[in-house]
This record gives sequence, structure tokens and C-alpha cells, in this order.
Amino acid sequence: MDQKMNKIPVAVLGATGAVGQRFVQLLASHPWFQLSALAASERSSRKHYADACSWHLNDPMPDSVREMMVEPVEPTLDARIVFSALPVEAARQIEPVFAEAGYIVCSNSSAFRLDPDVPVIIPEVNADHLALLKRQKEIRGWEGLLVTSPNCTTTGIVIPLKPIDMAFGLKKVIAVSMQAVSGAGYPGLSYLDIQDNVIPFINGEEEKMERESRALLGRMEGKQRVDADFLFSAQSNRVPVSEGHTICLSLELQEKASVAEVAELLSEFRGPLYKPGLPSMPRFPIVVRNEPDRPQPRKDRNAGGGMQISVGRIRPCPVLDLRMVSVVHNTLRGAASGAILNAELLVAEGYAS
Amino acid sequence: MDQKMNKIPVAVLGATGAVGQRFVQLLASHPWFQLSALAASERSSRKHYADACSWHLNDPMPDSVREMMVEPVEPTLDARIVFSALPVEAARQIEPVFAEAGYIVCSNSSAFRLDPDVPVIIPEVNADHLALLKRQKEIRGWEGLLVTSPNCTTTGIVIPLKPIDMAFGLKKVIAVSMQAVSGAGYPGLSYLDIQDNVIPFINGEEEKMERESRALLGRMEGKQRVDADFLFSAQSNRVPVSEGHTICLSLELQEKASVAEVAELLSEFRGPLYKPGLPSMPRFPIVVRNEPDRPQPRKDRNAGGGMQISVGRIRPCPVLDLRMVSVVHNTLRGAASGAILNAELLVAEGYAS
Amino acid sequence: MDQKMNKIPVAVLGATGAVGQRFVQLLASHPWFQLSALAASERSSRKHYADACSWHLNDPMPDSVREMMVEPVEPTLDARIVFSALPVEAARQIEPVFAEAGYIVCSNSSAFRLDPDVPVIIPEVNADHLALLKRQKEIRGWEGLLVTSPNCTTTGIVIPLKPIDMAFGLKKVIAVSMQAVSGAGYPGLSYLDIQDNVIPFINGEEEKMERESRALLGRMEGKQRVDADFLFSAQSNRVPVSEGHTICLSLELQEKASVAEVAELLSEFRGPLYKPGLPSMPRFPIVVRNEPDRPQPRKDRNAGGGMQISVGRIRPCPVLDLRMVSVVHNTLRGAASGAILNAELLVAEGYAS
Amino acid sequence: MDQKMNKIPVAVLGATGAVGQRFVQLLASHPWFQLSALAASERSSRKHYADACSWHLNDPMPDSVREMMVEPVEPTLDARIVFSALPVEAARQIEPVFAEAGYIVCSNSSAFRLDPDVPVIIPEVNADHLALLKRQKEIRGWEGLLVTSPNCTTTGIVIPLKPIDMAFGLKKVIAVSMQAVSGAGYPGLSYLDIQDNVIPFINGEEEKMERESRALLGRMEGKQRVDADFLFSAQSNRVPVSEGHTICLSLELQEKASVAEVAELLSEFRGPLYKPGLPSMPRFPIVVRNEPDRPQPRKDRNAGGGMQISVGRIRPCPVLDLRMVSVVHNTLRGAASGAILNAELLVAEGYAS
Repeated sequence: MDQKMNKIPVAVLGATGAVGQRFVQLLASHPWFQLSALAASERSSRKHYADACSWHLNDPMPDSVREMMVEPVEPTLDARIVFSALPVEAARQIEPVFAEAGYIVCSNSSAFRLDPDVPVIIPEVNADHLALLKRQKEIRGWEGLLVTSPNCTTTGIVIPLKPIDMAFGLKKVIAVSMQAVSGAGYPGLSYLDIQDNVIPFINGEEEKMERESRALLGRMEGKQRVDADFLFSAQSNRVPVSEGHTICLSLELQEKASVAEVAELLSEFRGPLYKPGLPSMPRFPIVVRNEPDRPQPRKDRNAGGGMQISVGRIRPCPVLDLRMVSVVHNTLRGAASGAILNAELLVAEGYAS
Repeated sequence: MDQKMNKIPVAVLGATGAVGQRFVQLLASHPWFQLSALAASERSSRKHYADACSWHLNDPMPDSVREMMVEPVEPTLDARIVFSALPVEAARQIEPVFAEAGYIVCSNSSAFRLDPDVPVIIPEVNADHLALLKRQKEIRGWEGLLVTSPNCTTTGIVIPLKPIDMAFGLKKVIAVSMQAVSGAGYPGLSYLDIQDNVIPFINGEEEKMERESRALLGRMEGKQRVDADFLFSAQSNRVPVSEGHTICLSLELQEKASVAEVAELLSEFRGPLYKPGLPSMPRFPIVVRNEPDRPQPRKDRNAGGGMQISVGRIRPCPVLDLRMVSVVHNTLRGAASGAILNAELLVAEGYAS
Repeated sequence: MDQKMNKIPVAVLGATGAVGQRFVQLLASHPWFQLSALAASERSSRKHYADACSWHLNDPMPDSVREMMVEPVEPTLDARIVFSALPVEAARQIEPVFAEAGYIVCSNSSAFRLDPDVPVIIPEVNADHLALLKRQKEIRGWEGLLVTSPNCTTTGIVIPLKPIDMAFGLKKVIAVSMQAVSGAGYPGLSYLDIQDNVIPFINGEEEKMERESRALLGRMEGKQRVDADFLFSAQSNRVPVSEGHTICLSLELQEKASVAEVAELLSEFRGPLYKPGLPSMPRFPIVVRNEPDRPQPRKDRNAGGGMQISVGRIRPCPVLDLRMVSVVHNTLRGAASGAILNAELLVAEGYAS
Repeated sequence: MDQKMNKIPVAVLGATGAVGQRFVQLLASHPWFQLSALAASERSSRKHYADACSWHLNDPMPDSVREMMVEPVEPTLDARIVFSALPVEAARQIEPVFAEAGYIVCSNSSAFRLDPDVPVIIPEVNADHLALLKRQKEIRGWEGLLVTSPNCTTTGIVIPLKPIDMAFGLKKVIAVSMQAVSGAGYPGLSYLDIQDNVIPFINGEEEKMERESRALLGRMEGKQRVDADFLFSAQSNRVPVSEGHTICLSLELQEKASVAEVAELLSEFRGPLYKPGLPSMPRFPIVVRNEPDRPQPRKDRNAGGGMQISVGRIRPCPVLDLRMVSVVHNTLRGAASGAILNAELLVAEGYAS
């Protein structure tokens, strides 16, 4: 593919924050993309990235970005694709400016995630929703475009739900999440608040999980997305874990399915529109664990380089039909890597040419 | 009450373990009971308690017990009531020996918990199940008796379920627990296993929660307990919290109930057979929290001296009828204090005279 | 004592912060003091304390303060003594205003701690330094007065050093601290920064430890404090512990001393100016632990209600003379309780009449 | 080098334990060594490694070892080099059996570490101590040989001390360590013991640090090692950190040295006997950090793939001459990788041919 030879210039908006740092880490060595600009708020801009950013990932800051000059978040960046790790209020203002100016905006923010003309995409689940971009162009008249990736917890739920919905039909879902602290960004939670504790509330999270799951599993009718209509109840909790969200699921299906059928279905799932060759796409998006005590966030969040959802404890539910546990790496598959995979999909589908 | 003047001599079996230490801490200053004997396995016996026991509670070992001699677990202890914190296998062997020898055995073990002639009791919930003791006497011919307290997580579920079941009728319960590490005893979990992690499995726990909940909410028919027949699905998880189990609940009721009705019902609940005067019984067994982010184990486990269940986030459920979150102190209400409250009930009901 | 009958009205400045909450918790049931006013910054004032304050202590907010109205930090508070938990910049502005207006100011801030006319006091160590107040009155002309308590880590070092210095003479001290997160206030450190980590730096802490230790162990010459002149090297580290600072000490003495002599000396120490009867003063300020693995912050921070320093592992040092480990409760003895004990001393010495 | 083409067969003794798993992880893809056998105690042997071993590292078990059959720890293993991760008692029995049978034994155990004919080696520090092997052959008559790597904490101290000792001469060292839980093996510490806590004692650790440091910095006289004679005082603490030991050092030197001189010296250090080409040897064994709050174990343990010691906060000491902080990855440089580097040195020096 040509992109490998002539890498596509990309930028990160909000490059100094928690998700921004993940974008920088991943893009510093991406086979298709060349990290050509870093943008952040006034306070950080006009500094070297190493000085502007309190790097908090476990692995050191890539040498190649240390001396990059942080630029203001304005549509004068030298890039074809911009990855947005902006906070929701800033995203609401700034992302349309970039899309209008012709950039391909791959956003991790929730600002426009459920707008009827803005695709929220997981390539293995609903690549066909990119068709919304036609409608987006008609309505907004942007020269560029805006694609979003879903909430991190939603990602860990929808990927295993997709093959089950396709094969057996979802009727009801009850999801209880135990979410890592990194999901709240940096500095995020005070140590004094979350150590030795569970906080059974994350502002807006349950609503996002419920609405986004139905959107992602919805179907296209022409240029419109028709949301799926299963019932969804989400309860989200913060737990003292650094990375990796764990979700307990109970499902009711339209057609009965055995544990063995579901396990096989999940482990073989590749997505209805699977096409190989995207650098960040794992060969199989789901790993099924058979041990009685897996998945666990510390041991399974890095499966497939943080891109695979680990599912285990598939068993009958005495109230609905089936129970299972899912683990997703919230800042990789659920944030930065997910948005990069979306950009790869856009390139492969010809949107970047 | 006379007992206050002449305290009743009591002993702890398994006094050096995690729950055993809690018993010792609580009984060292109990208004009705005099801690007169400490028993533990061969390895510990014939030593001073301070030498036999690796005390791990945050508050120091009471001075009054430091020089008590640990005795073997044999029915020669100078006590009327024995509190059993024995591991399940030992409990199965030893508790009947004590009951046969005439002791009142208040056990925290699961060994006999669901036997049809052994009451599993939470005084505010099912004090009437003590009627099983007549059957126990007939079948076993014991001079003493054996009463058990339920699993710690079950306790945090059943206390709020009781008033709801009485008022509206339970049909279905889905419970997902986030359980503290102290629930696994001492030494329990390795730091390397549970730090920065969630383990979505506790051996046998889900089955205990499902079966014990139906037993506790069952009704007496003569000398028999008829278990309740609502559907119950439990998923249990271990989280890096020292004490305090958190449980997310979804409920379906026979009669519809509003959030406000349930909140009021819970906060006023005292138990169908409530009678005041038991030293360890809180005035109200449930605290309803109205803050959006409560209850939390670190902040709420000590409510009512660790005897009150904190319930919050009562809200509708899009799949069943209602959702809520419950926190229980697993080694106090859910273990040692719960068993002591049972002993107080037995005294008040005349079983110890 | 009369004060018990007519309690002295006291106020807390900065009542909603981390140390402020400790003051409120302790003063809500103090035998001599009546908590009559709570003051905090504009943002919090004119609200009920329960609404103004995000209470984060493990035990619930005392009922008696929930509905107290938070007032602005101005010298119109109905109080004889004010306890200052203000941040250092605010303290520098505001504490003199209160002292000038006639209040007795007991400050936990470092703003004036080393001014030559401001006593920094630990009653068991240097109650005689209150003589500086005469000089303070001359220089400042205040109607009231200002007394400070030392840095939390310093407190855990100086209390054991005092008897050793008196008996054997200190020449050199090397102290390495492992400090709890609560020492940084609330919200303080991000969970993402300190979990699974040690941060070997606390801004200004080492300098405070070195300077304050020499001041506290200094001697009075007339109305002047002459600092002690032993050499002191401090290295401070933040560790993932909620409360309780641990300090490793190596000491060189002027006269040689055996481990047994020092252990006895410490355990019998009461302070050169000891007089009984202050409600917050423990019978002995130091507990000597003989177990090989004590003191530990989680197990020993609460010794003596958080007012006793636990010292252990007293043993020879191959480089200097002696090594030992000390644990201090940083928000009780090292902050709020320490300042309250100072106020009790002032009352006993007649400064409040 | 030929070894790359024909890899040398190696085995791990104690392959299922904490350090054993690190050996397996590292050797599964080593450029010179072919992992040809895994040995463990009776309980584990005759099983597939995946079944015998409760893998607890964050990255998954390498596929290539999952189906290797675990063998008993007997000198019938198909290997030229054996890496010993045996517990000390087992090591004392078994390592000589392997050395006698002709194997090159690279041990991480302390069993023989300070025997006068057993080299304890850090290649950058004292590769010349391999000369002890002549004496070992004379005394023991082994066909093979035994080389040990030092205690993990010692490693983090001695590497920075070496260039300082060479340049300025060490007189006195005071070291206070804050050690990760993984240093205690698996299962190691109970979560209930170390969470929210510091344990100021590790059995035998301080003695190891003091004695091994002098041995490693000793000089060879003919076939004898003459230990260095500086004074060393070690205080070791366990802290709630998963991996990475942090050490606070105070040093007194024979010749005075400035902070800048020492910083430069450390950052350029390569070892007196440096020769390039060992696969596990970093280009520079020390990274000097200039930020005020570094090194930190979570952020710096992985420097140089876990093989570089990070040193920071170099500054004067008011009692001795200089202070600094060092971080070492305790299970990589301080254990498995350190022993593998020793094996590489032995190969490069011709001992394996």
C-alpha cells in the first residue's frame, strides 16, 4: 500500500492529556501515519513537547517527539488526519472547525458521538455506518469529515454483543462495569478518593453506554442509522485499577443459545465486513478465556496489544439467558488505538485520498 | 437485664484467624458476654494469645486478651456460648461436637448453613426461623444447639431485599458484587494477584448468594423452612478493597413501586419481628444515601459501627424494575458482629438460660 | 478545671480542607473546647458545612456540625482560639489579622513557623519556647498571639530525638521518610501518579525537616531561641499509604548509648516539662515496639489515639551509632491533634484567660 | 558470533516461581540461548508448563513454552547452561549437583553467593571476579561451574557506587531501600499485610546488602577476592509497589566530588572491563535523571528494558558528602536478566565452549 511509502501526515489535538499521550505513543511508530504536529491548549503551546507534557505512561516518551513544538489548536496544522483527544467542551467548538477546514477528524470525544450524521464506529462492528458521511457532507457542507469512536466501556460491551446479536438476536442486556481510573483522564481521581474504595457512579457514563450500544448495533437504512431496540441497563463503578475496564453482562436472547455455541461464535468472530490489512486490527477482536477466574484487567488488558476484548465465564443466567465477563483496555482499544483503527479504515476505504 | 450483671461466658473457636480476631476484638468489651476462652488449632494452642496470633486489625489487640492462654478446640472450654470462626472442613467436624456437649454454637461457617434443621439467621430478617431449632433438637438430639449466620455478601443483599419483598414481592434479582479482600480470610490473596486488578470469580460464592438469599427470605411452615422462589442471578468479583462489599442490584417486583416509596421503606425498615434492646442491633439496619455517588465501601462500611447496610443510587432499571447499590461491612455485620447479634437474640429469646 | 464547665469557644480556619476536617472531627467532642465557628474561603462560606465540604474521612461527619453555617475567614468569628488549617499563602495574610484582633491563633501552617518570635511547639519537647511569646508581643504588638505546630514528619522525628539528645547529645541525624498521601492535603496526589509508585521528592519538605528539628531541639536564652547545632540530613519520599509517615533514622551521639538504654529511655520519656492533665496528651508520647517488623503505619498510626509515636528496630548503625524506625500519624499528632494539644497547653499556662 | 546460529541449550530450575517465570519469558526469545528444558519441584513436574504454572506476569505466557513438559530438578536436563531460580534451601542441595555434573550454573539464589570460591558478578562492575572460578575448580573439582548474581537491592546500589568508588573512593554508605513486593516471590506478601502500609523489615536483606556490596566492589588478589572495606549501613523497607526497588543513598567519599562531576561520571559509566556485544547489556548501565522528582519505580523500572539503573536527586548531604536516589528493576536487572547477562559474559569469555 502506498501509504507505507509516503506516510500520511497526522496531528494530535489535546496531545498533552492522558489520551493524547497514548495517541502520541502509538503514532510515533505507525506504519501508515507520520506524526507531524502536536497541538494543545495555550498553556502548553510554543513549548517542546517534553517540556509541555507531564508524561505519565509507564514506558518512556518516544525520543522522536521530545523536541516537537506544541502548536495551538488551530486549523493550520500540517496534517491530513487529526486525532482529537480534546475535552468534550473544547471538542464541541473545535472539531467542526477542523472538519470544515478539510481535515479528517477522528475523535475520541463524546461531543458529536450521537449526532445522526456523525458515525460512531468500531470497524469490526459497524464499518457500514460510514455511509452516514454522505449525509454529513450534505448537512454540514464540510470539506473534511468527522468520525468518532465510542466510549471505552461501550467498546468492551459492543464487540462481544455484535456476533451474539447477529446469530441469536439480543433482547435484554444488563451490564455492570468496574472501570479503571485512567478512564477519568489525568489528573483524574485523587488517590485519597479511590484507594481502598469503589465509587459506584461515573457522571453520564451509564447513559452513554445505553445509547451508544444501541447506535453501534443499529442498522443503516439508506443514509440513516436506525438504532437497535433491545433493552439495556448499565451500572458503572470506578475501582482502584490503573487500566482495563471489566464488565459483567447478563443477556436475554431471541433464540436460545448454548454456552459452547456462544464461546465458539465469539472466538471466531471477525466482523461482518472484515477485511484484513489494517495495521491496528487484531486477527480476531475477541479472545475467549476458559479459566474459571479470567478475564482480569491486569492480566488481559494487553491481549492483542490492547486491541482484543477478553471474554470469559460464559455461563447460563438464572434470570436472563447468559452471563459473561468482558475486559477491554480502556485507553487503547477503548480510546486512542480505537480512533487510530478508525483512521486506518477511512484510509482503506479511500476517504483520505 | 440480668446478663449485664452476670455476664455470660463465651469462647471463640478459630480465634487466631481473620474473623476470629474480629470476634475477639468485639467480645473484649461486650456488655452481655465475658470472653472466657480462646481456642485454635494445635499449632497455636498452649500459647498466650499475643504470641499465637499475628494480629492484623488496624486497632491494637485489646490488653485483656494478650495473656489469655489459647486452648485446643475441644468441648472442655469454660463457656456457655461458642462463636465459631473455623474453616469449613474443621467446622463440619467440630461444631456438632460442641452442640452435642451442650454449648450454644453461633457459627460463621457455611458447613451447616443450609441444612434443613439449622437456622441461618439475620435477626431483622428472619428471627422466626429459630423455630427450626425444635426440629434440630428432635433430629440431632443435641443438648446444645447450632445457629449460623449467612455469607457476608448475602447479608448485604438480603437486608434491603426483605422490606421490598414484604411490601412489593420479589420476582427476579440480578446481583453483581465487588468484594473486599478480607472476605477471603488471612493471609488470603497475594498482593501480586489482586493489586491493580479485579478477579471476576470467588469459588462457591455465587451459589451461596443464590441459595442463602432464598432461604433467608423463606417462610416457616410449622417446623420447616420453605425457601422463597424468586429468581436470583449472582456474579461475584474480588476488588482491591480491604473491607466492605459493594453490590449492584437490579430487581423485578410483583407490584410496581416508585423510587421514593422504596427509599422510604428501606430507611424506616426495622424488621418484622423487631424488638429493641439487643446491644449489637442498630436502631435501623439500613441507611439510605441520597448523594449520587454513595454508598462507597471506604466511607460507608463503618455506618452504625459496621452494622448498618448503606443503600443508594435507587433508580429505575430499563430491563427489570429498580436498580440500587448496597454496601455491607463484610467482617462485622457480614461475619463476627452478625454472629454476635444472633447470640444476643438467642439470649433474649431464652435459649441461653 | 473550670474550662470543662464553661467550654472555650473555638473556630477552625480552612475548615473544609483535609486538615480542617480533622480539626472539626476532633473538636466536635472536645472536653475543653466548644466548636463555635467554621470558616472557609468565599466559595464555601454561607453554606451549611455538610454542603460546603466534601467529607473524606472514614468515619462520618459529626451530626453537630452538619448544619453549622460556614463563615468567611474574617476576624469576626465568635471564638477565643482559632485553629488555622489555611494554605501557606492564605495563612501568611490572615493569621496576623486574627492575632492582631486578639485571637489565640494555633496554626498548622508553615507560614510563620521559623520566625524568631513565633513559637513552634510540641508540648512534650519544648513547652519552654512559649517564652518567645513575650518577644512576639513586644515586636508585633498583637493583642492576641500566634503559636505554630511543626511539620508532620518533623514531629515524628523530634519526639524520639528529644530524650536521646537530653541523655546522650545528638551529633548527626540522617532521616529518610516514607510519607503518606494525606500529607499533601485534598485532593492532593492523583491516583495515577502515586499508585504502584514511590515519588522521592516533596517540595520544601527536606528543608523544613532539617530546620524545624534544630529549632524544636533548640534552647531558650532569655527571650531568644538558639537552635540546636547537630547536623541533619533529610530525604523525603511519598509512598502509596493513606495515613502515617514512616521514618528511618541513623544517629550519631556525643556519648555512646546501648540499644537497651535507648529503648528504655524512649519508652519512659514524658518530656522535661511534663505536667499531666492536658486532654490530648498521651500518658507517654512514645511506644517502643520490640517486634522485628514494627512500627508499620497501618498498624501503629492509631497508637494512643494517633498521638503516640511508635519507635522500633532500635539497633546499632555500622556508619553512625544507632538506627531506628519511627511512625507518626501525620494528620493527628502531626497536624490537627498536635495543634489542639498546643491550645490545651496555652490554656493550662494561662494564656487564654 | 556462532552462538547465534547454533543456539546454546539452556534450562530453568524452579521455572514455575516468580523469578522462574521471568527467566522463561526472557529466554523464550533470546538471541544466543535456546530454552530446551524447564524444571520444577515434584508437584509441578510431568505437566505441561501452562498447566503447572500460575502465570502472573502482565504479558501473556509465550506460546512456545505452553506445551513444554516440566521435568524434575535432576541433572538429566538437555542443557549446557542452567539458570537457577530455586529457593535458597533447595539451591544449596541442588546447584552443586548440577555443577558437578558439568552444567554451567547461573544462580539467582543466595545459597553460595558469598562463598570465597563462588563469583557473585555484575558484568559492568566486577567481571574480573570470574577468576575465582579457577579456585572453585581446584577446591570443588566440579566439571561445570557455579556463578551467582547478587541480591536485587544490592544491584541497584553497587552499579552506581562502582564508578564513584573508582573515581573518588568510598568511605561510608548509608542506604535506605523501599522495595517492591515482587521481591518476595509469589505468592509472597498478603494483600492485607502490605496494602496501605510500609513494613520496615525484610528478613536477612540488610545483611545481604552490606556484605554483598563489599564483595562486589572488592578486588582480586590472585585467585582471592578481597572485600572492599568502606562502612555500609542498610535499612530495608517493603512498600506497596509491584516492581522496582527505590534506594536513598548518602555517601562519604575519600576525595571530595561535586554533584556535576558525579552526574557526568554516572551517565558515562560503562564498567572497567566493558566490552560490547552482550545481548542483555545496555549501552550505558546508568541513566541520570535531572527532574527534581525522579527516579520513580513505576516510571523508571523499565529503563533500558529493565537493565538500566536510574539515578537522580544527586545533591550534597549535610552529614556525609552526597545524597542520591536509585531505582532498579528487581526482577529483571536484579534477578533474571542479571543472571542471563552473567551467562552471556561466560559465553563471551569462553566458559561455555
